[in-house]
Amino acid sequence: MCATSSHRRVGLADVVRGRVLFGGDYNPEQWPEEVWHEDVRLMREAGVNSVTLGVFSWAKIEPRPGAREFGWLDRLMDLVHENGIGVVLATPTSSPPSWLGRLHPDTLPRDADGRTEWWGGRQHFSHSSATYRRHAAAITEDLAARYGSHPALTMWHINNEYCTYDWGDEAAGTFRRWLRDRYGTLDALNTAWGTAFWSQGYGDWEEVLPPRRAHYLNNPTQVLDFKRYTSDMLLECYVAERDIVRRHSPDLPVTTNFMPMWAGQDAWRWAGEEDVVSVDLYPDPRDPFGAQEGALVQDMTRSQARGPWMLMEQAAGSVNWRGVNHPKPRGLNRLWSLQAVARGADAVCYFQWRQSRQGAEKFHSGMLGHAGEQGRTYQEVRQLGAELRRIGPQVTGQHNPSQVAILHEWHAWWAGEQDGRLSREVGYQQVVRAWHRALWEAHITTDFAHPEHDLSAYRLVVVPQLYLLTDTAIDNLVAYVRGGGTLVCGFLTGIADEDDRVRPGGMDGRLRELFGIRTLHEWWPLGPGEYAECDGFRGTLWSEEIDAGTEETEDVVALSRYKGGELDGLPAVLRRGRAWYVSTLPEPAALRELLEGVAAGAGVRPVLDGLPTQVEAVRRGDLLFVLNHGREPVTVEVPGEYRDLLGERRVTDTLALGRYGVAVLSP
Amino acid sequence: MCATSSHRRVGLADVVRGRVLFGGDYNPEQWPEEVWHEDVRLMREAGVNSVTLGVFSWAKIEPRPGAREFGWLDRLMDLVHENGIGVVLATPTSSPPSWLGRLHPDTLPRDADGRTEWWGGRQHFSHSSATYRRHAAAITEDLAARYGSHPALTMWHINNEYCTYDWGDEAAGTFRRWLRDRYGTLDALNTAWGTAFWSQGYGDWEEVLPPRRAHYLNNPTQVLDFKRYTSDMLLECYVAERDIVRRHSPDLPVTTNFMPMWAGQDAWRWAGEEDVVSVDLYPDPRDPFGAQEGALVQDMTRSQARGPWMLMEQAAGSVNWRGVNHPKPRGLNRLWSLQAVARGADAVCYFQWRQSRQGAEKFHSGMLGHAGEQGRTYQEVRQLGAELRRIGPQVTGQHNPSQVAILHEWHAWWAGEQDGRLSREVGYQQVVRAWHRALWEAHITTDFAHPEHDLSAYRLVVVPQLYLLTDTAIDNLVAYVRGGGTLVCGFLTGIADEDDRVRPGGMDGRLRELFGIRTLHEWWPLGPGEYAECDGFRGTLWSEEIDAGTEETEDVVALSRYKGGELDGLPAVLRRGRAWYVSTLPEPAALRELLEGVAAGAGVRPVLDGLPTQVEAVRRGDLLFVLNHGREPVTVEVPGEYRDLLGERRVTDTLALGRYGVAVLSP
Amino acid sequence: MCATSSHRRVGLADVVRGRVLFGGDYNPEQWPEEVWHEDVRLMREAGVNSVTLGVFSWAKIEPRPGAREFGWLDRLMDLVHENGIGVVLATPTSSPPSWLGRLHPDTLPRDADGRTEWWGGRQHFSHSSATYRRHAAAITEDLAARYGSHPALTMWHINNEYCTYDWGDEAAGTFRRWLRDRYGTLDALNTAWGTAFWSQGYGDWEEVLPPRRAHYLNNPTQVLDFKRYTSDMLLECYVAERDIVRRHSPDLPVTTNFMPMWAGQDAWRWAGEEDVVSVDLYPDPRDPFGAQEGALVQDMTRSQARGPWMLMEQAAGSVNWRGVNHPKPRGLNRLWSLQAVARGADAVCYFQWRQSRQGAEKFHSGMLGHAGEQGRTYQEVRQLGAELRRIGPQVTGQHNPSQVAILHEWHAWWAGEQDGRLSREVGYQQVVRAWHRALWEAHITTDFAHPEHDLSAYRLVVVPQLYLLTDTAIDNLVAYVRGGGTLVCGFLTGIADEDDRVRPGGMDGRLRELFGIRTLHEWWPLGPGEYAECDGFRGTLWSEEIDAGTEETEDVVALSRYKGGELDGLPAVLRRGRAWYVSTLPEPAALRELLEGVAAGAGVRPVLDGLPTQVEAVRRGDLLFVLNHGREPVTVEVPGEYRDLLGERRVTDTLALGRYGVAVLSP
Repeated sequence: MCATSSHRRVGLADVVRGRVLFGGDYNPEQWPEEVWHEDVRLMREAGVNSVTLGVFSWAKIEPRPGAREFGWLDRLMDLVHENGIGVVLATPTSSPPSWLGRLHPDTLPRDADGRTEWWGGRQHFSHSSATYRRHAAAITEDLAARYGSHPALTMWHINNEYCTYDWGDEAAGTFRRWLRDRYGTLDALNTAWGTAFWSQGYGDWEEVLPPRRAHYLNNPTQVLDFKRYTSDMLLECYVAERDIVRRHSPDLPVTTNFMPMWAGQDAWRWAGEEDVVSVDLYPDPRDPFGAQEGALVQDMTRSQARGPWMLMEQAAGSVNWRGVNHPKPRGLNRLWSLQAVARGADAVCYFQWRQSRQGAEKFHSGMLGHAGEQGRTYQEVRQLGAELRRIGPQVTGQHNPSQVAILHEWHAWWAGEQDGRLSREVGYQQVVRAWHRALWEAHITTDFAHPEHDLSAYRLVVVPQLYLLTDTAIDNLVAYVRGGGTLVCGFLTGIADEDDRVRPGGMDGRLRELFGIRTLHEWWPLGPGEYAECDGFRGTLWSEEIDAGTEETEDVVALSRYKGGELDGLPAVLRRGRAWYVSTLPEPAALRELLEGVAAGAGVRPVLDGLPTQVEAVRRGDLLFVLNHGREPVTVEVPGEYRDLLGERRVTDTLALGRYGVAVLSP
Repeated sequence: MCATSSHRRVGLADVVRGRVLFGGDYNPEQWPEEVWHEDVRLMREAGVNSVTLGVFSWAKIEPRPGAREFGWLDRLMDLVHENGIGVVLATPTSSPPSWLGRLHPDTLPRDADGRTEWWGGRQHFSHSSATYRRHAAAITEDLAARYGSHPALTMWHINNEYCTYDWGDEAAGTFRRWLRDRYGTLDALNTAWGTAFWSQGYGDWEEVLPPRRAHYLNNPTQVLDFKRYTSDMLLECYVAERDIVRRHSPDLPVTTNFMPMWAGQDAWRWAGEEDVVSVDLYPDPRDPFGAQEGALVQDMTRSQARGPWMLMEQAAGSVNWRGVNHPKPRGLNRLWSLQAVARGADAVCYFQWRQSRQGAEKFHSGMLGHAGEQGRTYQEVRQLGAELRRIGPQVTGQHNPSQVAILHEWHAWWAGEQDGRLSREVGYQQVVRAWHRALWEAHITTDFAHPEHDLSAYRLVVVPQLYLLTDTAIDNLVAYVRGGGTLVCGFLTGIADEDDRVRPGGMDGRLRELFGIRTLHEWWPLGPGEYAECDGFRGTLWSEEIDAGTEETEDVVALSRYKGGELDGLPAVLRRGRAWYVSTLPEPAALRELLEGVAAGAGVRPVLDGLPTQVEAVRRGDLLFVLNHGREPVTVEVPGEYRDLLGERRVTDTLALGRYGVAVLSP
Repeated sequence: MCATSSHRRVGLADVVRGRVLFGGDYNPEQWPEEVWHEDVRLMREAGVNSVTLGVFSWAKIEPRPGAREFGWLDRLMDLVHENGIGVVLATPTSSPPSWLGRLHPDTLPRDADGRTEWWGGRQHFSHSSATYRRHAAAITEDLAARYGSHPALTMWHINNEYCTYDWGDEAAGTFRRWLRDRYGTLDALNTAWGTAFWSQGYGDWEEVLPPRRAHYLNNPTQVLDFKRYTSDMLLECYVAERDIVRRHSPDLPVTTNFMPMWAGQDAWRWAGEEDVVSVDLYPDPRDPFGAQEGALVQDMTRSQARGPWMLMEQAAGSVNWRGVNHPKPRGLNRLWSLQAVARGADAVCYFQWRQSRQGAEKFHSGMLGHAGEQGRTYQEVRQLGAELRRIGPQVTGQHNPSQVAILHEWHAWWAGEQDGRLSREVGYQQVVRAWHRALWEAHITTDFAHPEHDLSAYRLVVVPQLYLLTDTAIDNLVAYVRGGGTLVCGFLTGIADEDDRVRPGGMDGRLRELFGIRTLHEWWPLGPGEYAECDGFRGTLWSEEIDAGTEETEDVVALSRYKGGELDGLPAVLRRGRAWYVSTLPEPAALRELLEGVAAGAGVRPVLDGLPTQVEAVRRGDLLFVLNHGREPVTVEVPGEYRDLLGERRVTDTLALGRYGVAVLSP
């Protein structure tokens, strides 16, 4: 099912070779060539050793249909190479030239309302357009033929942030093709989609459409399949280009950059098709939980990579797509970059090297900002480059598996967040973030895993919420507990099968059995700002009317019960042996305490004892990273003798960290 | 004008025959046939005596154009019949099969922006499509021919929740046809629409369109007529199918289910075309005034039916279309169902019997929920079925006219809630609900009436707000007061004539004369959260700068005056004899007190004296229903000796009711 | 560049001739002719001396293609003339007849999503439609030929509130034509738009489109040029009609009415094409700063006119397009009308004379409202007419230049308010209003000026925010300071050049030099409700990380520094000689105090000393207008001896004003 176990032919290690990759997207086509020479000088001074070229160069390379203008890129590749900087070369297929849309309007996507997405922005391509695919393959072929063996080239980068949708007519055709592959027959599709409801039965494949604008709610399985299909169509585009560049560069790894926890791609499946798993990461510098968001995405990406990974894009300062965009205060860029290294990154890169003066992202920061060489941003980038050079040999290639896994899965997210559900207040990401935060604040490092993965190596498995679970996944969870594992499971888990069909009893029987739930009478979602009082804590978002049937199954323990209201006295948290069920979302401190207790029972310890919440500790190889996310200096206990690779100081038992301070402790 | 006075050939009484109808929508096409047998067993155990079949069966019956698959329905009708359950058979025309949209895109509606509403949801049909109407007639004809005499059949149900709009080209044609019928000449249309404003005059019928997307405000009379036309087009669809089934089942009544106080249909007009008036009712279980919303819709439906009516749909637990959907707490389903019976329902039905496992409404509750037979929901349904069986013989067929009528009218609603008015804060439904609530909390049972109805039987007539009134309606109100009736009238009444033309003086002169208003200088709408202080209360939403001309007309009394602000000292509540004018919306307690006083003066008494607000008392026939809408037990005075039909207890002067408790007291 | 310096052939003075024009839009086509006679009687009684006819008369004049129905207008012109009322005659081209849209759908605009704007509202014309322009020219030609010499005619009024956009195919063609004119070559366009970013390079003119719906952010220079183009296309429409009427009425002035500070038109450029500059003005009667909004628009319009101007539209009472629309309380219409006269208006007119009974604006007030002749509104209009008659001879034609100018420019507004910027909280109008309010509350009368205007006559120039500045404008500012002028400049000024290209260093080097900014490290926008503490005040919206390089340039003074937070100790307000830079938006009292101080230093005094904030004082010619915007009476010092032209009283040193009171003091 999940392709992540396939062996990678080549990988990040082949590029890294003891150095943390440091650099970013480089778009010199925006500048006269004299600027290029200043660029490479400043790159060298900053320790840049890798740049990504070509992401948005299609129109430059092919300004007219069939033209090929490679001269500028030849010069650029050579220049970069002469300066000892490696190149991640991108296929330019995420932003086709204007002539493609004009001559071939079939390459433009349509939304659910039938509106065209025109050129003039970016990503104006339909994944389903045969014309688009043909032109993308041609430019990829020629690019790979020309540069596939260039000495500067270290890695291929396909497209950029795949994230488009198409509801148009050609997409309707590929949707039907995808559905035929999935279901074989219309009968099977009708059964899977439950088309008997609302008279939606299909008698001819040509009747099947993407879920376009409808009078009232669309068929939810159709919507779910459309998301699956979209992820798979984009993956087809990726694979097609990957296979071309592989032919020309058999010994170089291939990647494409994910957006962080992006709803549009089943990244478990995609990761299996990549040689290097890379991600873009943009927490809000003003978000008090920005560091935890970073940790979550880093844990997720490391788990997809099953080892070191690449931070392809981050911002040296502000982004420009929020309502209010804050720069990074002094030290934060360094802190968050080293956090990524702590959690497995072997590459720390940025969008982009030099901040644009024109275009839609001219207020998105660069490593070299509008303020130039004297600007604080570049000065800090330079310092960071030097530090990464220092720690590179000790950290790169290191990978420490965790004892705890959080289960996450895209199909459950897609199915669970549709219209027509019981509460729009419950957001999948918010719930996953709340559970990860509890473990992060408890200083317990976690992996993420797919619910069908082999979980036996983990002491503790946590399921924040998996509305949809396949039979295989459910059996996997049950077997995991039977095999001695400890499982904690949040509400709205195991409700639906893979066709988004509600399981009998409203929740899968095997899971109800596992947790000791005899009858799940009713779900009681909580409104905005509403709480459910429980023994020892307050629950948010959700509550449930459960009959635990305690008289028959004496091993079922209600660890906390609802107090007052309609659910008074009913169980809020159930435990049956090593299986825990949490029918609400406890407030943060309560969830942390609950998970700390369960983890301790499962033999899982925090990285360090007694750390304050805002200090993060992570082990990578033999190194211990300690990061102060607070704006106040702090002193923490680190029993033992260490050398701090950054400060070149000895540390014995006690470590002082300034505001946003980091230590990389070597025993 | 209003067709409700037409004699009904056959009616609900012909079906009811002493039993409260109990059951609901039954969509067994979603389930394998073995489940059907479990269904009828559980229906019997729950006392179900009526199911609605076929609402969404078109694609099942006609899976390909012209096909007829009746075998499954034959078996189902027979099975249900063998188990003593009657069938309300629906024409399946609200959700056409996918092939119809594909082969005939002209059957799909377009919105005001020109966007198509595709199949894949429900109700994707254009009321104006000749192709749709032809196919709907054909399936109706064959269905009626096959089952019109089936012994299980008790009633025909046409379509489902008519609620669609169409701004497309074929609709433009039927709109013009409707306008020709209304106005005869373009000159008359130009006059009615006031097209001299903004250069909108029409010189050719073909220039006239539905009110599509425009640069700025659409012509308001065009918008009003488009709503009238839409209601009439849907009614044409209904009548066409009704006439077909009547031909095959001359002795069976025909209905279609209204949505509660739905803006899209002039239900006064529709009710006149139905043999049985039925409604769907879904108050939010968490709404503290949910019971009053129920009472309002029940009073409205009873008034449209002029006697017993059918509760076609309600939810046994939660719905799934609100932002946060709560289940019904223990006892609430029983309480609200018996409230409907108290206010005239002879049928208590649900959407739907068995909760769906698939499709867009799988989280909408059923009588038999996901939790199954042991679930609380089904257990409570079963108890209710038994109770309805017990009280059926005494209550069915009973109808008690009220002494008080609230006037309500769709055209006034449509005209008054357009863009370009003085305050978007004033919502018609909100104002009507506020006035009904005042009477409901005063324990005064009310009918609803159309402003052109004969009102002479009422002691008190209340007009919360009728922005648009025809001359006939105004004369009717004046005559009602002249004839001895008491009238209380809220602001924004009598402003416009039936073409939405503002009447001279800003409010009809006959009404100003009636209330003693010499000059209505200015309207002063109040902002959100703003109040107008008046003697004795605070007004909300609205205030007015009125010159009552007291020196000339000494019989005009200002019962309350504005205090402070620009209106200081001007009248807020005016009385001239038996005519009262309220120029603001008093806060709830003040409006209740005001109406209690006026009612007392008109000789109208509450059902019971001294009841707390949350206890509702209603008489039906000789029975006295007493319902505790509170979560705390309560004891109330009920002078006299009664037998409680539900509890089988004797009640003398004092009645104790538990949380959500109900008593049906027989003298 | 800016055409405002062209000499006006004829102007407002030719019409005014010692009378304040008083009247408004008159749309008698909505009424039977008997009403016209009542209209002129009531006009005469109210002192009306000018009406605007024909604004929405196209369908009345040309009910069928090519027809000409002038009889009614002949009668109307004669009637009005006989009653001594002048006519401002409008070309009716803002609202084409329905047949035009039906026969020529190419005349209808399309929005960025491709949706048509249909007839049935108003302004449903595409500025780019050759068909529309041809029909508009024809009706204008015939109208001008017929009435160009009519004795009632005093002025031509072209179209009405030009404000439309078009993204359709014909507009794409005119956009390309406009771009060719601007750039000459595609290379120049590619450079200006920075199309190297995101692969947007154009190789063929036909590829260039209006900025239609895109997947992600549109190219910002394309968006900016589309706004420039739209303003210019509308101006082409205006000029075409103007030239026609000028041919027929060479001695009459021509105008078109601006909306107040409307984003869609570069009014500096437009004003240069008008003989009379006129504006519509609708502050919210409930806005506590409504009077200041009025003053701002009046100052702006006077500056565009470089002398007396025309208030073309205001409301005698409420409008009908806000969420909640309040009438004007007693006295407010007089107060705000006299404020306009104080600030240079020689015409006080309304939309509209008689309130409509039908159509989309029937709840927009008229001089003669629904309440009629006895209504308060008309009574107050009548009083105002008498007062204007009294003061007309002394005020008309007078123009007093100010010592202070606020710089304002549309291209800076357009470029600065796009998507993809650092803060959506920063609104251009809000910032300009805040700075104008500070000066208004300091009783310092201001002009507005274009940044390329000759500023040498001003003692103080204030730049609230000009994100985009041309090189010419920057040199102009620098020269102004070098020449002895005092300049105060707010944040986000001089960031971009005229192609929206960020200037090196993030802010123009000449300006950084002028203010003493060595390095602008980072912008720190503030969130909603967030403050930046500074010495002496709190800043809002924005803050900046600036290195002022004080050690080298000792003449740079930090007048206030940030306190606490990331910017602790950095300069918030910088001064270098007569150039001031304010890197945040100080709270109102602080900004007022700051500007009072700078103004005093530049030798600028308030109109009167010691006035409370809510009292406004303005000089026009020799007259001193004193206006009390408060609801409480007030007494103020006015040193000297005066005669109050309104109250016919003598005033010596002290003036008492009632609620909303006004005095027009003559020495």
